[in-house]
Amino acid sequence: MIKLHGLNVSGNTYKAKLLMSLMGIDYKFHTLDILNQQHKSATFLTLNPRGEFPVLEDDKLVIWDSQAILVYLAKQYASSEQQHWYPENPADMAHITQWLTVANNEIFSTLAKARAILKLGHNGDLADCQKKAKTLLQWFDQHLSHRQWLVTEQPTIADIACYPYIALCEEGEISLLEHLAIQCWFKRIESLHGYIQLPE
Amino acid sequence: MIKLHGLNVSGNTYKAKLLMSLMGIDYKFHTLDILNQQHKSATFLTLNPRGEFPVLEDDKLVIWDSQAILVYLAKQYASSEQQHWYPENPADMAHITQWLTVANNEIFSTLAKARAILKLGHNGDLADCQKKAKTLLQWFDQHLSHRQWLVTEQPTIADIACYPYIALCEEGEISLLEHLAIQCWFKRIESLHGYIQLPE
Repeated sequence: MIKLHGLNVSGNTYKAKLLMSLMGIDYKFHTLDILNQQHKSATFLTLNPRGEFPVLEDDKLVIWDSQAILVYLAKQYASSEQQHWYPENPADMAHITQWLTVANNEIFSTLAKARAILKLGHNGDLADCQKKAKTLLQWFDQHLSHRQWLVTEQPTIADIACYPYIALCEEGEISLLEHLAIQCWFKRIESLHGYIQLPE
Repeated sequence: MIKLHGLNVSGNTYKAKLLMSLMGIDYKFHTLDILNQQHKSATFLTLNPRGEFPVLEDDKLVIWDSQAILVYLAKQYASSEQQHWYPENPADMAHITQWLTVANNEIFSTLAKARAILKLGHNGDLADCQKKAKTLLQWFDQHLSHRQWLVTEQPTIADIACYPYIALCEEGEISLLEHLAIQCWFKRIESLHGYIQLPE
């Protein structure tokens, strides 16, 4: 049985939960006690030396990093109808990797950071995050203005990796009102069978 | 013919060059005129809206992000003897993705940043980068202390993604003297057929 360690409020944890729900994968969820720094405990550091979450355990296999978890789930558990999540084609795989990088870098350091400052009390330069997020969202909106999904004609793990912190951007006081292509992309994701609600 | 846009001094550009040399892939190299901000020009932004390098063109296909370029080259051009660079196994693929993330995040924001501050005059907190790099190198050294390569029994794109900025760390005034496992890993990489020298 798959075990996912994470936190319900975390967009990165949600990525793994969303893909497992969309793919129909059963798993057990373990909520980390972050108030008591469980993610920095010796036991947890043996799972993930970075001391971050989510972490996925599948029998004796351990995967940390939310993007790596998406790669694993899509390659290990996709039925023949689910190959679209991470297709075999080298160009598609490379383009998906590009967006996994954007999820890790630009999205995490602007949209997710602004939300963390306002919602979770993290330190940081809110105005700078919001300004950079604005540029990022314009780029995303333009990219999606003539596409249904980020990479191929079907949803991939790139969409799952980028969706949560963009969809949660109002919690960082960043508006999406002008970005209609992004809003239409949200609707497509939210109408997928197995979609689960964003963290509150 | 493949065309790689980049800069010789860049560790990220070197990753793509190193893998192409190790795999025996021919390509043309285009040095960007960064003094005149060519990477922020309208023409270049049509290739990469992030305005960063390297960028790889293969006929009409464009790949930005150095990690994505490694994925593309290893999937598109590997002969049957070169499958080890990015194996098909889901667990290996996920573990490789973990290290591509580390190359993008921890390595780039500590080791590469310290080098950029000292060698290229970038702004930043050198002491903070050096301190965090120390922790990172301890983790790497421990990981490599009972392994030949980062993920499997053979070199993968994870090794190529992580190698350059660790190997260039002395340019950020970060010492590797205590890290023997990392030094042995360097020797293994440097003895691969087709290895090319690090940027100067």
